[in-house]
Amino acid sequence: MNEPRLVEVRRKILKENDVLARSLRERFRRAGVQVISMVSSPGAGKTTLLERVLTELRPNYRVAALVGDLATENDAARLARSGAPVKQITTGTVCHLDAGMVERALADWSLGDLDFLFIENVGNLVCPSSFDLGEDLRLVLVSTPEGEDKPLKYPTIFNTADVAVITKLDLADAAGIDLTALAENIRAVRPGIKLLKLSARTGEGVDQLNDLLVSRRQFQAAPAV
Amino acid sequence: MNEPRLVEVRRKILKENDVLARSLRERFRRAGVQVISMVSSPGAGKTTLLERVLTELRPNYRVAALVGDLATENDAARLARSGAPVKQITTGTVCHLDAGMVERALADWSLGDLDFLFIENVGNLVCPSSFDLGEDLRLVLVSTPEGEDKPLKYPTIFNTADVAVITKLDLADAAGIDLTALAENIRAVRPGIKLLKLSARTGEGVDQLNDLLVSRRQFQAAPAV
Repeated sequence: MNEPRLVEVRRKILKENDVLARSLRERFRRAGVQVISMVSSPGAGKTTLLERVLTELRPNYRVAALVGDLATENDAARLARSGAPVKQITTGTVCHLDAGMVERALADWSLGDLDFLFIENVGNLVCPSSFDLGEDLRLVLVSTPEGEDKPLKYPTIFNTADVAVITKLDLADAAGIDLTALAENIRAVRPGIKLLKLSARTGEGVDQLNDLLVSRRQFQAAPAV
Repeated sequence: MNEPRLVEVRRKILKENDVLARSLRERFRRAGVQVISMVSSPGAGKTTLLERVLTELRPNYRVAALVGDLATENDAARLARSGAPVKQITTGTVCHLDAGMVERALADWSLGDLDFLFIENVGNLVCPSSFDLGEDLRLVLVSTPEGEDKPLKYPTIFNTADVAVITKLDLADAAGIDLTALAENIRAVRPGIKLLKLSARTGEGVDQLNDLLVSRRQFQAAPAV
Protein backbone atom coordinates (compact mmCIF):
# COMPACT_ATOMS: atom_id res chain seq x y z
CA MET A 1 0.00 0.00 0.00
CA ASN A 2 1.27 3.43 -0.94
CA GLU A 3 0.02 5.29 2.13
CA PRO A 4 2.91 7.78 2.34
CA ARG A 5 2.41 9.00 -1.23
CA LEU A 6 -1.33 9.31 -0.79
CA VAL A 7 -0.74 11.24 2.41
CA GLU A 8 1.54 13.61 0.54
CA VAL A 9 -1.00 14.28 -2.21
CA ARG A 10 -3.70 14.72 0.42
CA ARG A 11 -1.57 17.24 2.26
CA LYS A 12 -1.17 19.36 -0.87
CA ILE A 13 -4.89 19.26 -1.58
CA LEU A 14 -5.66 20.18 1.99
CA LYS A 15 -3.28 23.12 1.78
CA GLU A 16 -4.98 24.39 -1.37
CA ASN A 17 -8.33 23.92 0.34
CA ASP A 18 -7.16 25.93 3.33
CA VAL A 19 -6.06 28.83 1.14
CA LEU A 20 -9.40 28.86 -0.64
CA ALA A 21 -11.35 28.49 2.62
CA ARG A 22 -9.52 31.47 4.08
CA SER A 23 -10.49 33.63 1.13
CA LEU A 24 -14.10 32.41 1.39
CA ARG A 25 -14.13 33.27 5.10
CA GLU A 26 -12.93 36.79 4.29
CA ARG A 27 -15.62 37.17 1.61
CA PHE A 28 -18.30 36.01 4.05
CA ARG A 29 -17.05 38.47 6.68
CA ARG A 30 -17.05 41.40 4.30
CA ALA A 31 -20.52 40.51 3.01
CA GLY A 32 -21.80 40.29 6.59
CA VAL A 33 -23.17 36.79 6.12
CA GLN A 34 -23.02 34.34 9.01
CA VAL A 35 -21.97 30.92 7.71
CA ILE A 36 -22.77 27.75 9.65
CA SER A 37 -21.84 24.25 8.51
CA MET A 38 -23.31 20.98 9.75
CA VAL A 39 -21.61 17.59 9.89
CA SER A 40 -22.86 14.24 11.19
CA SER A 41 -23.36 10.56 10.39
CA PRO A 42 -25.83 9.80 7.63
CA GLY A 43 -29.32 9.94 9.07
CA ALA A 44 -28.53 11.96 12.20
CA GLY A 45 -31.12 14.54 11.21
CA LYS A 46 -29.19 17.40 9.59
CA THR A 47 -31.83 18.08 6.95
CA THR A 48 -34.80 17.87 9.32
CA LEU A 49 -33.10 20.26 11.73
CA LEU A 50 -32.04 22.61 8.97
CA GLU A 51 -35.55 22.70 7.49
CA ARG A 52 -36.88 23.80 10.88
CA VAL A 53 -34.11 26.35 11.50
CA LEU A 54 -34.55 27.89 8.04
CA THR A 55 -38.31 28.11 8.55
CA GLU A 56 -38.00 29.69 11.99
CA LEU A 57 -35.28 32.20 11.11
CA ARG A 58 -36.79 33.20 7.79
CA PRO A 59 -39.39 35.71 9.03
CA ASN A 60 -36.60 37.83 10.55
CA TYR A 61 -33.48 37.00 8.54
CA ARG A 62 -32.43 36.40 4.97
CA VAL A 63 -31.39 32.74 5.01
CA ALA A 64 -30.10 30.28 2.40
CA ALA A 65 -28.54 26.83 2.31
CA LEU A 66 -26.13 24.64 0.37
CA VAL A 67 -26.58 20.92 0.85
CA GLY A 68 -24.09 18.21 -0.04
CA ASP A 69 -24.83 14.61 -0.96
CA LEU A 70 -23.20 11.97 -3.11
CA ALA A 71 -26.40 11.58 -5.11
CA THR A 72 -29.97 12.89 -5.41
CA GLU A 73 -31.46 16.35 -5.06
CA ASN A 74 -33.80 15.11 -2.31
CA ASP A 75 -32.43 17.31 0.44
CA ALA A 76 -32.56 20.49 -1.61
CA ALA A 77 -36.19 19.71 -2.42
CA ARG A 78 -36.95 19.15 1.28
CA LEU A 79 -35.19 22.32 2.36
CA ALA A 80 -36.83 24.39 -0.36
CA ARG A 81 -40.14 23.83 1.45
CA SER A 82 -38.88 26.37 3.99
CA GLY A 83 -39.09 28.99 1.24
CA ALA A 84 -35.38 29.76 1.49
CA PRO A 85 -33.03 29.64 -1.53
CA VAL A 86 -31.33 26.23 -1.52
CA LYS A 87 -28.73 24.68 -3.78
CA GLN A 88 -27.73 21.01 -3.93
CA ILE A 89 -24.09 20.03 -4.36
CA THR A 90 -23.73 16.43 -5.55
CA THR A 91 -20.26 15.05 -4.92
CA GLY A 92 -20.44 11.76 -6.84
CA THR A 93 -18.07 9.49 -4.92
CA VAL A 94 -16.42 12.18 -2.77
CA CYS A 95 -17.20 11.79 0.93
CA HIS A 96 -17.13 15.48 1.91
CA LEU A 97 -17.58 19.01 0.61
CA ASP A 98 -14.52 21.16 -0.03
CA ALA A 99 -14.05 24.92 -0.29
CA GLY A 100 -13.97 24.80 -4.09
CA MET A 101 -17.39 23.14 -4.25
CA VAL A 102 -18.78 25.82 -1.95
CA GLU A 103 -17.23 28.61 -3.99
CA ARG A 104 -18.63 27.24 -7.26
CA ALA A 105 -22.10 26.76 -5.76
CA LEU A 106 -22.11 30.40 -4.62
CA ALA A 107 -21.00 31.80 -7.98
CA ASP A 108 -24.41 33.16 -8.93
CA TRP A 109 -25.58 34.17 -5.45
CA SER A 110 -25.11 37.62 -4.01
CA LEU A 111 -23.68 37.12 -0.53
CA GLY A 112 -24.59 40.66 0.51
CA ASP A 113 -28.26 39.69 0.26
CA LEU A 114 -27.90 37.05 3.00
CA ASP A 115 -27.82 37.13 6.81
CA PHE A 116 -27.29 33.40 7.34
CA LEU A 117 -25.88 30.79 4.98
CA PHE A 118 -26.06 27.14 6.08
CA ILE A 119 -23.89 24.43 4.56
CA GLU A 120 -25.01 20.86 5.14
CA ASN A 121 -22.10 18.51 4.53
CA VAL A 122 -22.23 14.92 3.24
CA GLY A 123 -23.21 12.50 6.02
CA ASN A 124 -19.84 11.29 7.26
CA LEU A 125 -18.01 11.40 10.60
CA VAL A 126 -14.53 11.13 9.11
CA CYS A 127 -13.78 12.89 5.81
CA PRO A 128 -15.37 16.32 6.39
CA SER A 129 -13.18 16.95 9.42
CA SER A 130 -10.15 17.83 7.30
CA PHE A 131 -11.85 20.33 5.00
CA ASP A 132 -12.32 23.92 6.11
CA LEU A 133 -15.25 25.44 4.20
CA GLY A 134 -14.71 29.01 5.37
CA GLU A 135 -17.60 28.69 7.83
CA ASP A 136 -17.76 30.71 11.03
CA LEU A 137 -19.36 27.94 13.10
CA ARG A 138 -19.24 24.21 12.56
CA LEU A 139 -22.00 22.18 14.17
CA VAL A 140 -21.50 18.46 14.73
CA LEU A 141 -24.73 16.53 15.22
CA VAL A 142 -24.99 13.19 16.98
CA SER A 143 -28.39 11.50 17.20
CA THR A 144 -29.47 9.59 20.29
CA PRO A 145 -29.92 6.21 18.50
CA GLU A 146 -26.23 6.28 17.49
CA GLY A 147 -25.13 5.50 21.04
CA GLU A 148 -22.94 7.13 23.67
CA ASP A 149 -19.53 6.24 22.26
CA LYS A 150 -19.46 8.06 18.93
CA PRO A 151 -17.37 11.04 20.19
CA LEU A 152 -14.69 8.65 21.45
CA LYS A 153 -14.63 6.69 18.21
CA TYR A 154 -14.65 9.71 15.86
CA PRO A 155 -12.71 12.28 17.92
CA THR A 156 -11.41 14.38 15.02
CA ILE A 157 -14.80 15.51 13.78
CA PHE A 158 -15.77 16.59 17.29
CA ASN A 159 -12.44 18.35 17.65
CA THR A 160 -13.01 20.45 14.54
CA ALA A 161 -16.52 21.49 15.59
CA ASP A 162 -17.58 24.56 17.57
CA VAL A 163 -20.97 23.33 18.73
CA ALA A 164 -22.18 19.79 19.44
CA VAL A 165 -25.88 19.13 18.96
CA ILE A 166 -27.50 16.00 20.34
CA THR A 167 -30.46 15.33 18.01
CA LYS A 168 -33.50 13.03 18.11
CA LEU A 169 -34.02 13.74 21.80
CA ASP A 170 -37.55 12.34 21.36
CA LEU A 171 -35.99 8.91 20.63
CA ALA A 172 -33.63 8.94 23.63
CA ASP A 173 -35.82 6.75 25.85
CA ALA A 174 -36.75 4.30 23.09
CA ALA A 175 -33.09 4.02 22.10
CA GLY A 176 -32.07 3.48 25.74
CA ILE A 177 -29.34 6.10 25.51
CA ASP A 178 -27.51 7.48 28.53
CA LEU A 179 -27.54 11.20 27.71
CA THR A 180 -25.19 12.07 30.57
CA ALA A 181 -22.60 9.61 29.30
CA LEU A 182 -22.95 10.94 25.74
CA ALA A 183 -22.42 14.52 26.96
CA GLU A 184 -19.43 13.43 29.04
CA ASN A 185 -17.90 11.70 26.04
CA ILE A 186 -18.35 14.81 23.91
CA ARG A 187 -16.69 16.94 26.58
CA ALA A 188 -13.90 14.41 27.08
CA VAL A 189 -12.95 14.76 23.41
CA ARG A 190 -13.59 18.49 23.14
CA PRO A 191 -13.51 20.20 26.54
CA GLY A 192 -15.58 23.38 26.73
CA ILE A 193 -17.55 22.79 23.52
CA LYS A 194 -21.03 24.32 23.44
CA LEU A 195 -23.55 21.52 23.75
CA LEU A 196 -27.24 21.57 22.85
CA LYS A 197 -29.91 18.88 23.00
CA LEU A 198 -32.96 19.02 20.78
CA SER A 199 -35.55 17.20 18.72
CA ALA A 200 -36.07 18.64 15.26
CA ARG A 201 -39.24 16.56 15.00
CA THR A 202 -40.97 17.89 18.13
CA GLY A 203 -39.16 21.24 18.07
CA GLU A 204 -37.91 20.84 21.65
CA GLY A 205 -34.63 22.73 22.09
CA VAL A 206 -34.50 24.20 18.58
CA ASP A 207 -35.08 27.72 19.96
CA GLN A 208 -31.85 27.47 21.89
CA LEU A 209 -29.94 26.70 18.71
CA ASN A 210 -31.60 29.59 16.89
CA ASP A 211 -30.80 31.93 19.80
CA LEU A 212 -27.18 30.79 19.75
CA LEU A 213 -26.90 31.44 16.00
CA VAL A 214 -28.52 34.88 16.28
CA SER A 215 -26.31 35.90 19.21
CA ARG A 216 -23.24 34.74 17.32
CA ARG A 217 -24.30 36.85 14.37
CA GLN A 218 -24.83 39.89 16.59
CA PHE A 219 -21.41 39.34 18.16
CA GLN A 220 -19.69 39.03 14.77
CA ALA A 221 -21.52 42.05 13.34
CA ALA A 222 -20.61 44.31 16.27
CA PRO A 223 -18.04 46.92 15.23
CA ALA A 224 -14.51 46.24 16.39
CA VAL A 225 -13.08 48.97 18.64
CA MET B 1 -7.82 21.44 -6.49
CA ASN B 2 -5.74 18.55 -7.75
CA GLU B 3 -8.55 16.02 -8.08
CA PRO B 4 -7.15 14.26 -11.20
CA ARG B 5 -3.83 13.49 -9.51
CA LEU B 6 -5.53 12.28 -6.34
CA VAL B 7 -7.79 10.08 -8.43
CA GLU B 8 -4.75 8.59 -10.15
CA VAL B 9 -3.01 7.78 -6.86
CA ARG B 10 -6.26 6.35 -5.49
CA ARG B 11 -6.61 4.15 -8.55
CA LYS B 12 -3.17 2.67 -8.01
CA ILE B 13 -3.85 2.05 -4.34
CA LEU B 14 -7.17 0.46 -5.17
CA LYS B 15 -5.49 -1.79 -7.69
CA GLU B 16 -2.94 -2.94 -5.11
CA ASN B 17 -5.78 -3.48 -2.66
CA ASP B 18 -7.65 -5.61 -5.19
CA VAL B 19 -4.62 -7.82 -5.80
CA LEU B 20 -4.16 -8.33 -2.07
CA ALA B 21 -7.89 -8.90 -1.51
CA ARG B 22 -7.93 -11.56 -4.20
CA SER B 23 -5.08 -13.43 -2.49
CA LEU B 24 -6.86 -13.11 0.86
CA ARG B 25 -10.05 -14.51 -0.67
CA GLU B 26 -8.13 -17.49 -1.99
CA ARG B 27 -6.52 -18.06 1.44
CA PHE B 28 -9.93 -17.91 3.10
CA ARG B 29 -11.35 -20.38 0.59
CA ARG B 30 -8.51 -22.86 1.04
CA ALA B 31 -8.75 -22.59 4.84
CA GLY B 32 -12.50 -23.21 4.67
CA VAL B 33 -13.35 -20.08 6.61
CA GLN B 34 -16.47 -18.12 5.72
CA VAL B 35 -15.68 -14.40 5.82
CA ILE B 36 -18.43 -11.82 6.28
CA SER B 37 -17.86 -8.07 6.41
CA MET B 38 -20.23 -5.45 7.78
CA VAL B 39 -20.53 -1.81 6.69
CA SER B 40 -22.91 0.94 7.84
CA SER B 41 -23.18 4.47 9.15
CA PRO B 42 -21.68 5.08 12.59
CA GLY B 43 -24.18 3.92 15.19
CA ALA B 44 -26.30 1.71 12.94
CA GLY B 45 -25.73 -1.22 15.29
CA LYS B 46 -22.94 -3.29 13.72
CA THR B 47 -21.31 -4.15 17.04
CA THR B 48 -24.55 -4.96 18.86
CA LEU B 49 -25.62 -7.24 16.02
CA LEU B 50 -22.21 -8.85 15.76
CA GLU B 51 -22.07 -9.51 19.51
CA ARG B 52 -25.37 -11.37 19.24
CA VAL B 53 -24.40 -13.31 16.09
CA LEU B 54 -21.05 -14.37 17.59
CA THR B 55 -22.79 -15.49 20.79
CA GLU B 56 -25.45 -17.46 18.94
CA LEU B 57 -23.13 -19.14 16.41
CA ARG B 58 -20.42 -19.95 18.91
CA PRO B 59 -21.90 -23.12 20.41
CA ASN B 60 -21.81 -24.78 16.98
CA TYR B 61 -19.09 -22.98 15.04
CA ARG B 62 -15.60 -21.60 15.56
CA VAL B 63 -16.10 -17.86 15.15
CA ALA B 64 -13.82 -14.83 15.37
CA ALA B 65 -13.97 -11.13 14.52
CA LEU B 66 -11.86 -8.20 13.41
CA VAL B 67 -13.27 -4.78 14.20
CA GLY B 68 -12.19 -1.46 12.69
CA ASP B 69 -12.44 1.96 14.28
CA LEU B 70 -10.52 5.21 14.01
CA ALA B 71 -9.90 5.17 17.74
CA THR B 72 -10.58 3.15 20.94
CA GLU B 73 -10.65 -0.57 21.62
CA ASN B 74 -14.24 -0.32 22.87
CA ASP B 75 -15.78 -2.54 20.24
CA ALA B 76 -13.23 -5.33 20.65
CA ALA B 77 -13.95 -5.27 24.40
CA ARG B 78 -17.70 -5.47 23.74
CA LEU B 79 -17.35 -8.30 21.23
CA ALA B 80 -14.98 -10.24 23.47
CA ARG B 81 -17.91 -10.71 25.87
CA SER B 82 -19.20 -13.25 23.34
CA GLY B 83 -16.19 -15.42 24.20
CA ALA B 84 -14.96 -15.37 20.60
CA PRO B 85 -11.42 -14.26 19.64
CA VAL B 86 -11.58 -10.60 18.62
CA LYS B 87 -8.96 -8.18 17.37
CA GLN B 88 -9.32 -4.39 17.08
CA ILE B 89 -7.86 -2.57 14.07
CA THR B 90 -7.47 1.16 14.75
CA THR B 91 -7.14 3.16 11.58
CA GLY B 92 -6.23 6.60 12.97
CA THR B 93 -7.63 9.02 10.42
CA VAL B 94 -8.41 6.47 7.69
CA CYS B 95 -12.15 6.11 7.02
CA HIS B 96 -12.17 2.43 6.02
CA LEU B 97 -10.36 -0.87 6.40
CA ASP B 98 -8.22 -2.17 3.54
CA ALA B 99 -6.99 -5.63 2.63
CA GLY B 100 -3.53 -4.93 4.05
CA MET B 101 -4.95 -4.08 7.47
CA VAL B 102 -6.93 -7.31 7.43
CA GLU B 103 -3.90 -9.34 6.38
CA ARG B 104 -1.73 -7.85 9.13
CA ALA B 105 -4.40 -8.40 11.78
CA LEU B 106 -4.64 -12.06 10.80
CA ALA B 107 -0.87 -12.66 10.85
CA ASP B 108 -0.89 -14.60 14.13
CA TRP B 109 -4.24 -16.35 13.69
CA SER B 110 -4.61 -19.78 12.17
CA LEU B 111 -7.40 -19.51 9.60
CA GLY B 112 -7.87 -23.28 9.48
CA ASP B 113 -9.14 -23.13 13.07
CA LEU B 114 -12.09 -20.92 12.08
CA ASP B 115 -15.50 -21.56 10.53
CA PHE B 116 -16.64 -17.92 10.42
CA LEU B 117 -14.59 -14.73 10.45
CA PHE B 118 -16.47 -11.44 10.75
CA ILE B 119 -14.94 -8.11 9.76
CA GLU B 120 -16.66 -5.01 11.13
CA ASN B 121 -15.62 -1.99 9.06
CA VAL B 122 -15.29 1.62 10.23
CA GLY B 123 -18.70 3.31 10.43
CA ASN B 124 -18.93 5.05 7.06
CA LEU B 125 -21.31 4.85 4.10
CA VAL B 126 -18.80 6.11 1.53
CA CYS B 127 -15.15 5.10 1.85
CA PRO B 128 -15.46 1.35 2.56
CA SER B 129 -17.31 0.77 -0.70
CA SER B 130 -14.12 0.94 -2.79
CA PHE B 131 -12.06 -1.51 -0.73
CA ASP B 132 -12.43 -5.24 -1.27
CA LEU B 133 -11.37 -7.07 1.90
CA GLY B 134 -11.46 -10.57 0.41
CA GLU B 135 -14.77 -11.28 2.13
CA ASP B 136 -17.29 -13.75 0.74
CA LEU B 137 -20.34 -11.75 1.82
CA ARG B 138 -20.64 -8.04 2.48
CA LEU B 139 -23.53 -6.96 4.69
CA VAL B 140 -24.70 -3.35 4.59
CA LEU B 141 -26.71 -2.30 7.63
CA VAL B 142 -29.15 0.60 7.70
CA SER B 143 -30.91 1.42 10.97
CA THR B 144 -34.53 2.55 11.04
CA PRO B 145 -33.82 5.97 12.65
CA GLU B 146 -31.59 6.89 9.68
CA GLY B 147 -34.62 7.34 7.43
CA GLU B 148 -35.89 5.88 4.18
CA ASP B 149 -33.61 7.70 1.75
CA LYS B 150 -30.15 6.46 2.69
CA PRO B 151 -29.89 3.89 -0.15
CA LEU B 152 -30.65 6.61 -2.72
CA LYS B 153 -28.11 9.00 -1.21
CA TYR B 154 -25.31 6.45 -0.75
CA PRO B 155 -25.93 4.10 -3.68
CA THR B 156 -22.35 2.81 -4.08
CA ILE B 157 -22.15 1.14 -0.70
CA PHE B 158 -25.45 -0.64 -1.32
CA ASN B 159 -24.23 -1.64 -4.77
CA THR B 160 -21.13 -3.33 -3.37
CA ALA B 161 -23.08 -5.28 -0.73
CA ASP B 162 -24.55 -8.78 -1.02
CA VAL B 163 -27.06 -8.52 1.82
CA ALA B 164 -28.92 -5.49 3.19
CA VAL B 165 -29.92 -5.63 6.84
CA ILE B 166 -32.45 -3.18 8.26
CA THR B 167 -31.50 -2.86 11.95
CA LYS B 168 -33.18 -1.34 15.04
CA LEU B 169 -36.56 -2.70 13.97
CA ASP B 170 -37.71 -2.08 17.57
CA LEU B 171 -37.27 1.68 16.96
CA ALA B 172 -39.16 1.73 13.63
CA ASP B 173 -42.43 3.01 15.10
CA ALA B 174 -40.81 5.58 17.39
CA ALA B 175 -38.71 6.82 14.48
CA GLY B 176 -41.78 7.00 12.24
CA ILE B 177 -40.03 5.16 9.44
CA ASP B 178 -41.82 3.75 6.39
CA LEU B 179 -40.24 0.29 6.17
CA THR B 180 -41.82 -0.44 2.80
CA ALA B 181 -40.32 2.71 1.31
CA LEU B 182 -36.91 1.89 2.80
CA ALA B 183 -37.02 -1.62 1.31
CA GLU B 184 -38.12 -0.22 -2.05
CA ASN B 185 -35.25 2.26 -2.03
CA ILE B 186 -32.77 -0.52 -1.27
CA ARG B 187 -34.15 -2.61 -4.15
CA ALA B 188 -34.19 0.40 -6.48
CA VAL B 189 -30.44 0.83 -5.98
CA ARG B 190 -29.59 -2.87 -5.88
CA PRO B 191 -32.27 -5.02 -7.51
CA GLY B 192 -32.44 -8.56 -6.17
CA ILE B 193 -30.33 -7.96 -3.06
CA LYS B 194 -31.14 -10.20 -0.11
CA LEU B 195 -32.93 -8.12 2.50
CA LEU B 196 -33.39 -8.88 6.19
CA LYS B 197 -35.06 -6.91 8.98
CA LEU B 198 -34.07 -7.40 12.59
CA SER B 199 -33.52 -5.92 16.01
CA ALA B 200 -30.23 -6.89 17.61
CA ARG B 201 -31.58 -5.57 20.91
CA THR B 202 -34.71 -7.72 21.07
CA GLY B 203 -33.28 -10.51 18.94
CA GLU B 204 -36.18 -10.39 16.47
CA GLY B 205 -35.03 -11.54 13.04
CA VAL B 206 -31.44 -12.41 14.05
CA ASP B 207 -32.12 -16.12 13.50
CA GLN B 208 -32.80 -15.45 9.84
CA LEU B 209 -29.42 -13.79 9.46
CA ASN B 210 -27.70 -16.67 11.24
CA ASP B 211 -29.53 -19.18 9.03
CA LEU B 212 -28.48 -17.27 5.94
CA LEU B 213 -24.82 -17.27 7.02
CA VAL B 214 -24.88 -20.97 7.85
CA SER B 215 -26.54 -21.88 4.56
CA ARG B 216 -24.01 -19.80 2.67
CA ARG B 217 -21.23 -21.64 4.47
CA GLN B 218 -22.75 -25.03 3.61
CA PHE B 219 -23.11 -23.96 -0.02
CA GLN B 220 -19.50 -22.76 -0.22
CA ALA B 221 -18.17 -25.86 1.53
CA ALA B 222 -20.00 -28.28 -0.77
CA PRO B 223 -17.58 -30.06 -3.10
CA ALA B 224 -17.57 -28.82 -6.67
CA VAL B 225 -18.56 -31.48 -9.19
